[in-house]
Amino acid sequence: MISVVILGAGNVATHLYKAFQASKDVTVKQWYNRSLKTIETYKNKVETTDDLSKLVEADVYILAVNDDAIAELSSLLPFENKFVVHTSGSVSPYDIDKKNRRGVFYPLQTFSKAAPIDFSEVPLCLETLRRTDYALLKKLGASISDHAKRVNSDQRASLHLAAVFVNNFTNQIYRVAQEITESQGAEFDMLKPLILETAKKVHHMSPYRAQTGPAKRNDKKTIKKHLKALDNEHHEAIYKLLTDSIKKTHGR
Amino acid sequence: MISVVILGAGNVATHLYKAFQASKDVTVKQWYNRSLKTIETYKNKVETTDDLSKLVEADVYILAVNDDAIAELSSLLPFENKFVVHTSGSVSPYDIDKKNRRGVFYPLQTFSKAAPIDFSEVPLCLETLRRTDYALLKKLGASISDHAKRVNSDQRASLHLAAVFVNNFTNQIYRVAQEITESQGAEFDMLKPLILETAKKVHHMSPYRAQTGPAKRNDKKTIKKHLKALDNEHHEAIYKLLTDSIKKTHGR
Ligand SMILES: NC(=O)c1ccc[n+]([C@@H]2O[C@H](COP(=O)([O-])OP(=O)(O)OC[C@H]3O[C@@H](n4cnc5c(N)ncnc54)[C@H](OP(=O)(O)O)[C@@H]3O)[C@@H](O)[C@H]2O)c1
Ligand SMILES: NC(=O)c1ccc[n+]([C@@H]2O[C@H](COP(=O)([O-])OP(=O)(O)OC[C@H]3O[C@@H](n4cnc5c(N)ncnc54)[C@H](OP(=O)(O)O)[C@@H]3O)[C@@H](O)[C@H]2O)c1
Repeated sequence: MISVVILGAGNVATHLYKAFQASKDVTVKQWYNRSLKTIETYKNKVETTDDLSKLVEADVYILAVNDDAIAELSSLLPFENKFVVHTSGSVSPYDIDKKNRRGVFYPLQTFSKAAPIDFSEVPLCLETLRRTDYALLKKLGASISDHAKRVNSDQRASLHLAAVFVNNFTNQIYRVAQEITESQGAEFDMLKPLILETAKKVHHMSPYRAQTGPAKRNDKKTIKKHLKALDNEHHEAIYKLLTDSIKKTHGR
Repeated sequence: MISVVILGAGNVATHLYKAFQASKDVTVKQWYNRSLKTIETYKNKVETTDDLSKLVEADVYILAVNDDAIAELSSLLPFENKFVVHTSGSVSPYDIDKKNRRGVFYPLQTFSKAAPIDFSEVPLCLETLRRTDYALLKKLGASISDHAKRVNSDQRASLHLAAVFVNNFTNQIYRVAQEITESQGAEFDMLKPLILETAKKVHHMSPYRAQTGPAKRNDKKTIKKHLKALDNEHHEAIYKLLTDSIKKTHGR
């Protein structure tokens, strides 16, 4: 049985708490947040505290707080030589105060408190500064996810950056598509099956092989027609840049 | 029972054939292609032909051929006053020779012959030049899809253009993400659950509300870090443009 203390009570902390609760290999011994109010509803299920001096013994302390708060909160921990990890995609494990053993437990998914998530499907990027701590972190990861993997800091940074592309930028593409359809009174809803199919396609085929459309075919007539139809210069700039990008990728 | 003749034997024609075959309300009376070879495997299941002069009577003739071939093929049809539709997102129904009654039967999805598709989930954009033809086309659409809708040419053009964004451009974003991760020896596979979650999220939430990340927060520190990490100027251009786009959308 691995014992854990969670620090922070945001999106990630809440989903981690639930996933650990559902695992028979982990016990959440305590849940800390600087304001108790946020975790009030859980106080009958787990020991809660807003007092760092009252933190109890555990195998792993998980700092699921804002990136900016990791260094400071870690320096305020009233113990040494314990195993402390953060959950950030972009922060170095060296940001954690060096009085403790340090690591990273980064879940590569987008979380919001309201949306349920199947944690077994969430890839976990694991990193420890001491080799001997890895087995424990791996066991903790495997207790809630089928995709817990060792990933070094450069790899994690590249995954975090790539996540901005596939999550934030893709979502913005959806937004532009909505603006385009609604400007003609057409329904964005009609695009949803295509959105899902596009995402599913790269699960069994590389994005390179999955590509189709006017840019890949270098179909100048259609591209010209599309550019003429786009009356928003901002949408036009995105169209041009991504069309060029596809052409470059496919040697046009 | 609606009788149909399919002309063309590419991705769309093949999926339409299968969907109609599975429907009890439609019979495919004949399948035409300029080269018989492509539809040879079906010749025991349906009458096939490569001779336009042998086309049989049907309620609807579906031209599922290249956009560029629609006008010419329609002018070669050896009959008049019959109901002829094409399956293109961008071609006008007026491109079909006016000797026949004209319409559009555009399935808003990406098709490739190998990938199976549940046609009941495919949105169908329907258009007829004569009001009196609409009921038949609607019935034909409803026989294979739960999402058959009347859509005018401007709306269809906007959906087709928006489809380039959510399909081709999104897929290129995935490709860039793959280049970014693989340049550090990280696995693109780890992004797949996030890719799927991002696509699913806009099924129950607008892309506007679904947005998160450094651009939306105007988190200058992270944006700067990301731009520094991108050593490919092409990736950098996409990062900048889409970050600006998100900022604009969210009033930053
Ligand atoms: N959200 C995601 O999709 C996601 C995915 C992967 C990784 N992450 C990473 O996970 C970590 C947490 O993200 P999140 O989305 O869960 O954040 P969040 O929902 O904004 O929650 C942040 C938590 O940190 C606490 N906090 C902030 N500043 C603090 C400080 N100075 N001292 C103590 N506690 C402080 C907050 O306390 P209060 O409740 O009192 O405000 C809150 O409980 C971040 O490193 C993030 O990069 C997030
Ligand atoms: N693929 C999609 O995802 C998709 C989605 C929605 C709508 N559409 C539209 O559906 C239509 C067909 O697309 P597709 O993807 O099925 O195309 P495709 O797979 O390339 O097949 C095109 C078919 O058209 C035939 N053809 C080409 N030129 C011809 C000509 N001059 N005379 C007679 N037949 C000719 C070809 O005959 P051969 O077999 O002899 O070459 C082939 O059977 C297009 O209007 C397209 O815009 C496509």
